[in-house]
Amino acid sequence: MNVAIIAAAGQGTRMRGNRAKQFLELAGTPIIIHTLRSFELCEAIQEIILVLPAEDTAGFLEIAERHRLKKLWKIVPGGTTRAASVLKGLMAVRSATAEIIAVHDGVRPFVTPDEITRTVEAAEVHDAAILVAAVTDTIKEVSNGVVAKTLPRTALRRALTPQCFRFELLRRAYEHADVLDPELTDESSLVERLGVKVTIVEGSSRNIKITGPEDLALGEVLLKESG
Amino acid sequence: MNVAIIAAAGQGTRMRGNRAKQFLELAGTPIIIHTLRSFELCEAIQEIILVLPAEDTAGFLEIAERHRLKKLWKIVPGGTTRAASVLKGLMAVRSATAEIIAVHDGVRPFVTPDEITRTVEAAEVHDAAILVAAVTDTIKEVSNGVVAKTLPRTALRRALTPQCFRFELLRRAYEHADVLDPELTDESSLVERLGVKVTIVEGSSRNIKITGPEDLALGEVLLKESG
Repeated sequence: MNVAIIAAAGQGTRMRGNRAKQFLELAGTPIIIHTLRSFELCEAIQEIILVLPAEDTAGFLEIAERHRLKKLWKIVPGGTTRAASVLKGLMAVRSATAEIIAVHDGVRPFVTPDEITRTVEAAEVHDAAILVAAVTDTIKEVSNGVVAKTLPRTALRRALTPQCFRFELLRRAYEHADVLDPELTDESSLVERLGVKVTIVEGSSRNIKITGPEDLALGEVLLKESG
Repeated sequence: MNVAIIAAAGQGTRMRGNRAKQFLELAGTPIIIHTLRSFELCEAIQEIILVLPAEDTAGFLEIAERHRLKKLWKIVPGGTTRAASVLKGLMAVRSATAEIIAVHDGVRPFVTPDEITRTVEAAEVHDAAILVAAVTDTIKEVSNGVVAKTLPRTALRRALTPQCFRFELLRRAYEHADVLDPELTDESSLVERLGVKVTIVEGSSRNIKITGPEDLALGEVLLKESG
């Protein structure tokens, strides 16, 4: 069984207003519902564990039912960092049946079922695989206020989600992790530290992370285009 | 005298329609005019050289007059690559009086006069300075389809424009350049190759490059916010 852990426990402090960003609406539907739908539609995923802010867990089952999210198996209250939240999701996985775990940011609603499938399948073959996108900017490595070097753009990728791993591998990676470290930005880096090779799966730059008001506006545009 | 070279000779093939993207409108005004206005308003810049597609040079002076762009000193037809176009702009600079050259992408209309001033002033002190923004994504170095390593995000910056240099230094950098190399994405990398230290000036991530329809939509949102 392949399980998605959707990390959506952020408090959204960078967004205007008091509502956590995953509950803000895109075309009249909460961002988190758009995200869950992509996993609902993806045949490579059988079960979803959703990590939410503690105060939102109680009310969400009703919302899930209204949107017919049949794969949503468990709703778990999150931790103080993203990694702590993913770890809580991981602890809710039934180890007897779990095969691939797909960790995904709740505020990336534009991931497609095809992208999820391709990343899960790469993890089935190689144990660890992440969705990535090209880097379009020129990236500089800097040090003490000056450019140290220009990095070769063709050898760089932006890490997106889902990031997919064999359950035992991801559990082992999290055993060694300091989940309160704010520099810990993705699961892949934990798995890389174990010396395991992580395969890249090329995805679309449309798979944006909605973290600010500009992203929300861009999201509306992307949604119109795909609609 | 500090001179801005605005590179706006692109043919905009990534944008829908036939119009080069620098002439598409944001809030009813061509992108290139928004860009030129920021330089017009910046007291650190005295003269502007604009590089345009050859077929657009003739008609532009009238547009410039209508928008009261008093610093626009010369309009130069561009080359086949961005670097070839900047070189053509550079050849139009009057070497007797030129001090700092600020090279800027015509399709970055959201640069502020303050950002231009700070970058020019840093170049006055250090000979070479570029505007940069933080990297918000996790960046992976990849090789043969797998992650080679996760780069430390705090040591990375996205190179924006303007990129500002003493005239003689930039001329020397271009002497050694293969301007037809598509990998040549910015002036800074040419100057870095000479062994010269390039100072970074922290700028805003609002200073986007408009290269696709999504950027144009995002641009409209950014403009509304600042208006």
